[in-house]
Amino acid sequence: MTMVIRGDVVFTQKPGCFTALEDGCVVVGDDGRVMEVTRSLPDLTLHGPSVLDTGIETPAAPHSEPSPHWKPEPHVVDRRGCLVIPSFVDLHVHAAQYPMSGLGLDAELLQWLRNTTFPTESRFADPEVAETWYRRFVRRMWRVGTLRFSAFATLHEDSTLMLMRLCQEAGLRPVIGKVNMDRNSPEDLSEGTSDSLDATRRIIKMSRIETPDVGYVVTPRFVPATTTRLMEGLGEIVREFGLPVQSHLDENRSEVDWVHRLHPDIPTYAEVYDRFGLMPEGRTIMAHCIWLTDSERELLRGRRVWAAHCPQSNLNLTSGLIPVRRDLDAGLGVCIASDVAAGHDPSMPRQIVAAIETSKAKTFEAGHEKDRPLTLSEAFYMATKRPGEFFGAIGRGRVGSFEPGYDFDALVIREEGDNPLDLSPEGRLARFIYDGDDRDILERWVAGRRVSEPFAR
Amino acid sequence: MTMVIRGDVVFTQKPGCFTALEDGCVVVGDDGRVMEVTRSLPDLTLHGPSVLDTGIETPAAPHSEPSPHWKPEPHVVDRRGCLVIPSFVDLHVHAAQYPMSGLGLDAELLQWLRNTTFPTESRFADPEVAETWYRRFVRRMWRVGTLRFSAFATLHEDSTLMLMRLCQEAGLRPVIGKVNMDRNSPEDLSEGTSDSLDATRRIIKMSRIETPDVGYVVTPRFVPATTTRLMEGLGEIVREFGLPVQSHLDENRSEVDWVHRLHPDIPTYAEVYDRFGLMPEGRTIMAHCIWLTDSERELLRGRRVWAAHCPQSNLNLTSGLIPVRRDLDAGLGVCIASDVAAGHDPSMPRQIVAAIETSKAKTFEAGHEKDRPLTLSEAFYMATKRPGEFFGAIGRGRVGSFEPGYDFDALVIREEGDNPLDLSPEGRLARFIYDGDDRDILERWVAGRRVSEPFAR
Repeated sequence: MTMVIRGDVVFTQKPGCFTALEDGCVVVGDDGRVMEVTRSLPDLTLHGPSVLDTGIETPAAPHSEPSPHWKPEPHVVDRRGCLVIPSFVDLHVHAAQYPMSGLGLDAELLQWLRNTTFPTESRFADPEVAETWYRRFVRRMWRVGTLRFSAFATLHEDSTLMLMRLCQEAGLRPVIGKVNMDRNSPEDLSEGTSDSLDATRRIIKMSRIETPDVGYVVTPRFVPATTTRLMEGLGEIVREFGLPVQSHLDENRSEVDWVHRLHPDIPTYAEVYDRFGLMPEGRTIMAHCIWLTDSERELLRGRRVWAAHCPQSNLNLTSGLIPVRRDLDAGLGVCIASDVAAGHDPSMPRQIVAAIETSKAKTFEAGHEKDRPLTLSEAFYMATKRPGEFFGAIGRGRVGSFEPGYDFDALVIREEGDNPLDLSPEGRLARFIYDGDDRDILERWVAGRRVSEPFAR
Repeated sequence: MTMVIRGDVVFTQKPGCFTALEDGCVVVGDDGRVMEVTRSLPDLTLHGPSVLDTGIETPAAPHSEPSPHWKPEPHVVDRRGCLVIPSFVDLHVHAAQYPMSGLGLDAELLQWLRNTTFPTESRFADPEVAETWYRRFVRRMWRVGTLRFSAFATLHEDSTLMLMRLCQEAGLRPVIGKVNMDRNSPEDLSEGTSDSLDATRRIIKMSRIETPDVGYVVTPRFVPATTTRLMEGLGEIVREFGLPVQSHLDENRSEVDWVHRLHPDIPTYAEVYDRFGLMPEGRTIMAHCIWLTDSERELLRGRRVWAAHCPQSNLNLTSGLIPVRRDLDAGLGVCIASDVAAGHDPSMPRQIVAAIETSKAKTFEAGHEKDRPLTLSEAFYMATKRPGEFFGAIGRGRVGSFEPGYDFDALVIREEGDNPLDLSPEGRLARFIYDGDDRDILERWVAGRRVSEPFAR
């Protein structure tokens, strides 16, 4: 059944500007994909609207339940006065670090991993801890409107599968990976190489049956924590199953030095992953990428890697300020990500602002005085369409825009009070991004289906 | 009637560390001031508790209404399991810019003033616009737990008085100033010199009668917008009434150049204010102070100026990264402020985080590699005790700490869910600062009195 969503539609087809339609319409086909965006309702008779849904007055009563079955929606969904925007996509988030948001941030990366992160992740061996916190994490992602993401779980097999099941139940469509780590890890958060590979294969097979909407992403923690034998084995899994990969790259200068000491025979950090088949073309996410060499930049561009820029994390851990303008000009696929919990806030609007702020701070660094800071529309694009194309690339539906053929993944935003300053839709979006929060999000849609709050208490 | 608040008490007596008492007590005298902080309840028999208030279960039903009259509270207020912390103090905020949070931030200061700020402020000539937005602003400050602040209104006399009355009615205790601006301002947001001075005197006199809890602060916009005749007249008012002063200083390099061109005979920007009596010792707030010369730093230290560091604003407008460690080491009274709406978020926790992040970004600037970033306890101190002492200095009660003699201005924080990671009170405070929001604030107290939500819709 074709559906029309009517409201103030704003999205980014390209980085430099918003496409905005005041009182516009998004026409969505019965496959949940966008058919067209129009300025008026010319297609209504064509598509035959039979029900007028003006559900604005009853936001507390969701019309659809999270369910594996498609439920027909009314033909016209009247959201006039609200913003209709693509939902957010976060390509780098650690689900198991959510409990420790804001903790231990007076340290840099390697000390923070040792003192704060590893002890927290080791708690996820306990299924009760995992269930409590993963439910909170999934609910929080729903709240802030991040409906697709790529998440690290922990090395624990059962709790990783639990996270995948909870996302499936909630109606979200992320990819998730069990962390692989078999060296330089604390005793209570380490695993044997074969155990690690066997568990990975089991999760891949189980999740294909149990969680069709939640994909698997191969997840070596980072080079210092993975032996060459483990990386070889993971490379085989990537080839065998045609899976995507996520990991960390060039985050912190001490980390980069360490990788050089561990692999003196391989010229750069990025080439270590590539050597072991862990940078498959067009389906790899590398987080941070702050300290890239020119040859690494060239390699990432060639492999069409999504470089997940995590601005809040990079400030919190004093990792560095990514030269984002230089990377964009070099054709790198830079997107914005939260890196919870080195980034302390799962909200992508907060990360968009942090990315813009970081690009402004960068202009005070020697050699970068002329770097043009990110604009709001650029940063919005980097949190919607660019990361959303990752899901298209791995066959899980293009998202992050309202162009024809994109899955209708969307947020309906209703701001507090009226609009006495007569702001344009773009102005209202700016206010939401900078000073709004999840209370302003009236509805969340995934692939044309409204998704209600999961695990409501 | 003496009162005891029982909970997990956290505050900062000095910048370097938290004072934390798990299940501690704050004893508050009947003048609303802290008498002592204790680890147990030894003084209960002494102070004679007769009522046990365990109001935790009914947060929606406030026990006291905003009222000019003191209402007796139960002797023991049982808030075990909650954090009890000093409420926040924001020494630089533009109340009339609240509607434009997040707008126009792809520009730098002078262009942003012209394109976004001045048009917004000029709308406050309309009392209806002013009332709508000032109510929202006051409610928002209450929500985020900033219960004392120093605010710029606009140049409009009536709406400035309206803001002062709304704060009085709400039970908040800020200082507020009508903006004075008689040059280099747009036609619909400018005033004659004598009109500006006359209106200022009228507001000072009216507010002394009508708004005893809301003080006046003399508020020249900034040097480029005030003629020497206006600055002279304002200096006279400062002397005559013994009032404090707030203004802007050394925010943006183009602004600094402009001041030099306007006053070629005066060596520095800071000395312009001082020349006209607008830097009275121990009662002056200067916002930003990014581009201070050594002689300016020395002048500010001598005048015991509160330097209001506005990290979010400084990033948003690409103004610069304040050398905060250098300023603190030089003995400057640096506090953290929001500068709404060049800072887009009125929440002081967000500003605390932004200040820490900025101090980390600064280490990537040449010559600042060794600057030690701010720690959380330092930044918390700079958002509570240090700015709170401004109110003590102007005779309106010291706030921002729980040391004896401080007004009991406090927030009771109740976090979501239980505490499965067994965090310390400081750890829970860190989580609140980094990833909490106003929904976690159960109660707000001003001078020993609970203040309920103003203008509830």
